[in-house]
Amino acid sequence: MITDKLIDKILKTEAPICAGLDTHIGIMPPSFIKDIDENNLQQCADKIYEYNKILIDALCDLVPSVKLQIAYYEKYGIPGIEAYAKTIEYAHKAGLIVIADVKRGDIGSTCTAYASAHIGSNIFNADFMTVNPYFGTDGMQPFLDECIKSDKGLFVLVKTSNPSSSELQDLVTESGDKIYEKCADLVINWGNKPGKYGYNSIGAVVGATHKEEGVSLRKRMKNTFFLIPGYGAQGAGAEDIAGMFDDNGIGGIINSSRGIIGAWQKEKTDDFAKAAYDATASMKMDIKAALDKLKG
Amino acid sequence: MITDKLIDKILKTEAPICAGLDTHIGIMPPSFIKDIDENNLQQCADKIYEYNKILIDALCDLVPSVKLQIAYYEKYGIPGIEAYAKTIEYAHKAGLIVIADVKRGDIGSTCTAYASAHIGSNIFNADFMTVNPYFGTDGMQPFLDECIKSDKGLFVLVKTSNPSSSELQDLVTESGDKIYEKCADLVINWGNKPGKYGYNSIGAVVGATHKEEGVSLRKRMKNTFFLIPGYGAQGAGAEDIAGMFDDNGIGGIINSSRGIIGAWQKEKTDDFAKAAYDATASMKMDIKAALDKLKG
Repeated sequence: MITDKLIDKILKTEAPICAGLDTHIGIMPPSFIKDIDENNLQQCADKIYEYNKILIDALCDLVPSVKLQIAYYEKYGIPGIEAYAKTIEYAHKAGLIVIADVKRGDIGSTCTAYASAHIGSNIFNADFMTVNPYFGTDGMQPFLDECIKSDKGLFVLVKTSNPSSSELQDLVTESGDKIYEKCADLVINWGNKPGKYGYNSIGAVVGATHKEEGVSLRKRMKNTFFLIPGYGAQGAGAEDIAGMFDDNGIGGIINSSRGIIGAWQKEKTDDFAKAAYDATASMKMDIKAALDKLKG
Repeated sequence: MITDKLIDKILKTEAPICAGLDTHIGIMPPSFIKDIDENNLQQCADKIYEYNKILIDALCDLVPSVKLQIAYYEKYGIPGIEAYAKTIEYAHKAGLIVIADVKRGDIGSTCTAYASAHIGSNIFNADFMTVNPYFGTDGMQPFLDECIKSDKGLFVLVKTSNPSSSELQDLVTESGDKIYEKCADLVINWGNKPGKYGYNSIGAVVGATHKEEGVSLRKRMKNTFFLIPGYGAQGAGAEDIAGMFDDNGIGGIINSSRGIIGAWQKEKTDDFAKAAYDATASMKMDIKAALDKLKG
């Protein structure tokens, strides 16, 4: 079961971390891109794939997973999406679990096509994909079915990391629950059979930037594994996140994108792979300390 | 201004209609695909582009616009997305306005990439794109900025056509408003300067299947142009939709996908272009009669 596999890898690496490959030309050291024309999509996409391969080689023993934000690949058109597909394949060969951050969501017939594209085994073939719950159950069903059929998983948006997430997600309903809590209850209902660690393959996105909400969602969603974005560049630290894990120190995976792939900027070096490695190792210790503190 | 251009074309063709090119192999007459291997993505994608070209040639004087549901293209991987890009280009050459039904939505930095990909002028270059409002204003801002910069437009999900849309969208908030009404108010705030017909370029998706909600949203959103899916295959008729238009009979564009591109099935013919033409002409008369009745 895919969530078991992910947790196995998290325990083995001692890193509940996914490296966010939101790779684009602007995040690369100037020396790495000095020979390309930034208006040439193919050249940009080739550099992106090259950058990703170097990062994957550097990080594949340190982390269990990478997350690809497809927007940064769509931005470079067809060559960009080719780089996206090739990166997934390369990450799989390196033994990594791949989360496709695509946030698709639509009516049922349309989502059958999206599910087949992103987590079916024939096309992009990611292990997990992110989805948007706004359409409700009939829009979600094809994703749920594909997860069973192909042993894949989802992370459904519940409480996102950005400041304006409050505008809709925090609205209070007649029952006293906020919208993101209503989403959480839907996600619980969409859940399938929990694996050996107690988590099923229908997970939730819960932003690291919302410490209290994260704690309360962990209590509400006993069998739901969390994808936790917002660490680092978006402002959250390990102590904000620790409460989103269970008493065994499992229950989520934390994403960092800019803090890893752009770590060379802070370190004032062109060796982006080493900077990414060091930033990830430091993030790992930071999170381990916070989780150890929680376990007492 | 793009919404003015769309309305000019609607008035010229007397058809507030977009033909939904949700094109996939399963919707084509067997005789059209008898020579292809359905497991060969390139062959499938080539057929999709060929089918779209024939439909565009048949319909380009009858309707102002086509809508492409990108899920059906992503389903065929890179060749599918190439067919998507080529179809947009072909539709533009035929004088049609193109709505990219992609329903993207994320944090701001990510949406800058999505906006550039879908409605920027360099990549897919659609005229309008659909977006999901779940992230709130900071996620929407890059789309709003791109609309001003490139004279493009949006349709933001407000009330979707599917039955389960009620699960989240109809939840009642403390203020008495439902969630889709709160979304509607956000969309109103996101609106820019109305054009000559009183509509700005930040539109809303309002499902044809929700007659009463559509009437009430038309009153609430005076300057918001509607994209109205759900006619035909999803069960709504012209009389369900008429109240979503203003007193001048404008204010929205109605999408039909399966009812047009798969019309040959009902007509028991292999001439899918003629069947699509006839179905569209019939839809046009159906809508015109309902709008004339409304105007008295």
